[in-house]
Amino acid sequence: MTKKNRKVVLKLVSGNSSGNAKGRELVNGTTGQIEDYVFNPSSVAVIGASRDNKKEMSGGWVGRLVQFGYKGEIYPINPDAESILGLKAYPSIVSVPDSIDYAIVSVPARAVPQVVKECINKGIKVIHVYAAGFSETGKETGRALQAELVELVNNSNVRLIGPNCMGVYSAKSGLTFDTRFSKEPGPIGFLSQTGVGGRRLIYLANQRGLRFSKAISYGNAVDLDGPDFLEYFAADPETRFILIYVEGVKDGRRFFSALRQCTQTKPVVMLKGGLSEGGAGAATSHTASLAGSRQVWKTLFRQTGVIHVESLEEAVEQMVAVVNLPHIRGRRVGLVGRGGGIGVLAADMCEAHGLSVPGFMPETREQLARITPAEAGSSVRNPVEIGLGKRGLSEFYSEGIKIVASDPEIDFIITFLNPEDYVHYGIGDWIEQVSGELMEVTKALSKPLIVVFLPGRDRDIFKSIVQIQDKCQEAGIPCFSSLDVAVKTVSKLITYYEFKYGNQAEQDTGK
Amino acid sequence: MTKKNRKVVLKLVSGNSSGNAKGRELVNGTTGQIEDYVFNPSSVAVIGASRDNKKEMSGGWVGRLVQFGYKGEIYPINPDAESILGLKAYPSIVSVPDSIDYAIVSVPARAVPQVVKECINKGIKVIHVYAAGFSETGKETGRALQAELVELVNNSNVRLIGPNCMGVYSAKSGLTFDTRFSKEPGPIGFLSQTGVGGRRLIYLANQRGLRFSKAISYGNAVDLDGPDFLEYFAADPETRFILIYVEGVKDGRRFFSALRQCTQTKPVVMLKGGLSEGGAGAATSHTASLAGSRQVWKTLFRQTGVIHVESLEEAVEQMVAVVNLPHIRGRRVGLVGRGGGIGVLAADMCEAHGLSVPGFMPETREQLARITPAEAGSSVRNPVEIGLGKRGLSEFYSEGIKIVASDPEIDFIITFLNPEDYVHYGIGDWIEQVSGELMEVTKALSKPLIVVFLPGRDRDIFKSIVQIQDKCQEAGIPCFSSLDVAVKTVSKLITYYEFKYGNQAEQDTGK
Repeated sequence: MTKKNRKVVLKLVSGNSSGNAKGRELVNGTTGQIEDYVFNPSSVAVIGASRDNKKEMSGGWVGRLVQFGYKGEIYPINPDAESILGLKAYPSIVSVPDSIDYAIVSVPARAVPQVVKECINKGIKVIHVYAAGFSETGKETGRALQAELVELVNNSNVRLIGPNCMGVYSAKSGLTFDTRFSKEPGPIGFLSQTGVGGRRLIYLANQRGLRFSKAISYGNAVDLDGPDFLEYFAADPETRFILIYVEGVKDGRRFFSALRQCTQTKPVVMLKGGLSEGGAGAATSHTASLAGSRQVWKTLFRQTGVIHVESLEEAVEQMVAVVNLPHIRGRRVGLVGRGGGIGVLAADMCEAHGLSVPGFMPETREQLARITPAEAGSSVRNPVEIGLGKRGLSEFYSEGIKIVASDPEIDFIITFLNPEDYVHYGIGDWIEQVSGELMEVTKALSKPLIVVFLPGRDRDIFKSIVQIQDKCQEAGIPCFSSLDVAVKTVSKLITYYEFKYGNQAEQDTGK
Repeated sequence: MTKKNRKVVLKLVSGNSSGNAKGRELVNGTTGQIEDYVFNPSSVAVIGASRDNKKEMSGGWVGRLVQFGYKGEIYPINPDAESILGLKAYPSIVSVPDSIDYAIVSVPARAVPQVVKECINKGIKVIHVYAAGFSETGKETGRALQAELVELVNNSNVRLIGPNCMGVYSAKSGLTFDTRFSKEPGPIGFLSQTGVGGRRLIYLANQRGLRFSKAISYGNAVDLDGPDFLEYFAADPETRFILIYVEGVKDGRRFFSALRQCTQTKPVVMLKGGLSEGGAGAATSHTASLAGSRQVWKTLFRQTGVIHVESLEEAVEQMVAVVNLPHIRGRRVGLVGRGGGIGVLAADMCEAHGLSVPGFMPETREQLARITPAEAGSSVRNPVEIGLGKRGLSEFYSEGIKIVASDPEIDFIITFLNPEDYVHYGIGDWIEQVSGELMEVTKALSKPLIVVFLPGRDRDIFKSIVQIQDKCQEAGIPCFSSLDVAVKTVSKLITYYEFKYGNQAEQDTGK
């Protein structure tokens, strides 16, 4: 337990998280550093580990921690095992001689109160109750068990996550609830009410190259609740962007205020399930949430500056925009692509989503005219069709983007290409060439560039586009596979920045 | 020219297409059959064919006809060639001894009037002027050439397509402007102002398993214009659905009336470029169209019952819904899938797009309860999560769909699955099993079924989904790769049917 002494004690004095009855902060206020037992415990006990190593490896918590490379000490607890996956096992939590930061409780619901009691006696700081079978069942026994938990937690200093949840994912410490998640930490803090949906969202985001600082699935929330984690994310320097997936909240006022706190400094994207009557009914049986009306939520999004998304896929693409784009200072887009008809549709789409497609300045048009052959249909207006050479992609492509970026009336650029148009040049080579040009040109640009590659239905083109998206992601260029998605996500991000800077201006005036 | 005698003479008397100055109908009114020289000519002359066979094969009109298997006679015209691609060539159109139905004019713009004169003298019925360089250039010489064409056509009985367009695609007769198009005819009539965009749309639709009766790219429209083709499609028994891609129209009143004529009997989907200020500007330089305001077009869509789409991709997916779904009699959807959270979002999406997600009848819930294990989170509400067996997909999946379909409060079903959840069962086998079950269950259903498979980013899953989409397409089941697309397209189609039957009810009352 040598790592233990780098921890400070969980602060017990009343903090500024006013709605938190116990006033114990997740964030240590004295050191200025965030060191915590929720996301970075030095030791984890797994209560209810299986003696069957194969079973434990395929879906047990000890198996997860071992496979994912948890960096602290692991204490498997099982009364009938001497060792589990090569780790010394203990019959009960109290029989462990060392002190332990964090316990995962994976026993049947009816056994949970006794185990939690033992954890409290042992002086464990944070308990994650994975077990389901509490209030969410809608049954009397479940409700009684949950009430017992509340009682225990309220009369102790322990902090409890759950019950009925997946708990913590923290790449840095090696805690996870799915071994497929990326081991590389990143800038996104993720708060998820639902376990399965949250897991899928992380998985989709990882596939898209997005990385997380911390994620939490918090279930029935008898103690630690959404706003606790939001306040944590707001203060956490490792978290620069926040993603939320909720179906409902208990304390609307506190949730609202925690969101405001987050959006003051960090973009927040929220997927809200149960906005409709049918959806709300389903949410009630899914997570026992009070979903609230669409109107109430729309108002909340507007007043907090939260970016609202409506599907897992949209959430992921929105995060690609949020993570990769800097503060875009206006809504004036320069469109660069091939195909006059597609350009027209792209311009329509931009304006339908609140972006503007202004005419270029005369100097810009002059410069573009020099590199654009006067073919029928081609144009030096905005959208501009850059003349394409024999190799498929003109040597003027990058230059065209640079010229458009130099126009003072343009705030950012969207470029769109359809790889199927270039299949006869060899799709691998073409993709290689284009991605090379994009990486190069981005370095020289003072304005944000957003890239769209249309995927079509060819498996090899699809694969190439996935590769180029990964490359773009590494280079910090948002790369989408539909114009619609590009335009929507960028517009929503700009709305956030308008909210944020409008907000700061108000505060400045208030001083 | 033995095929010639099955044609009737193009009718020259005044028809009911009042805006058509010459009153010559494309449709023969006397036989009741549609036999025409536009889409089914018995012979085609290509004026301006290349002597270079390789060049002709890679992009010439004779090459296209030969490769695509045009069924009539082909007459290559070139003063310096004896034969082109093995076909006897003629120095001029007048030197051909046989009579000819259709001529493709692929010579420079300045030579076009003389060639058209010769075609008229030769008694050709339909001329397609491929050549560009007319009014769309915005230059005086181009405008003068176009005026000359108008003059020639107005003083003759010839019908002219173009100039500056790709002309006709008709799988049945073997006319085409792209050899990659499907040789199999189908139920969609397609009207396209733009050549490149129209070609891409056909290509994307073909890839998605959609087939066309006829398609036309009509360019500057000095004679035959959009409404002529719409009137043709309205009457054409081979055309059951209509797809339109326009940027602007000349005669709004006639266009409106032609659309009304179409939507009385056939669903019409329209992609309209240039709805925004920026888009309209771009459209002007692209096809010299007067684009019209968004408000005017929105009104037109509502008053004609036209289904409006905003991108090529959306147009294709909308056609998948239009072609495969019967008349859906109401907006009440039963949702069957896996993942409670996804179900909540699906229900939200349905209601956001005007569908309703009603509770099931007690009998339905009872039946579902029998096949759904009482797991935490699973539900016999709508959306229903069907319990999944060890093999990944439960034997109860089909049964669940049947039970939901039997509920009198449900009009149709959307089922959604995420193949990535089943990767460990072997994706090929799983897809095979699921598609088999879907084909089987559809036969037994009295209500429409819409399928959604989420694609993720794995190339092999992507490929499998493309395969299952093709299978579904063959079986007449609409299969999408996003819930959002499924819900939007279905809702828009229902709106059309509401328009159509509302309309008929009004007419009935009027009698």
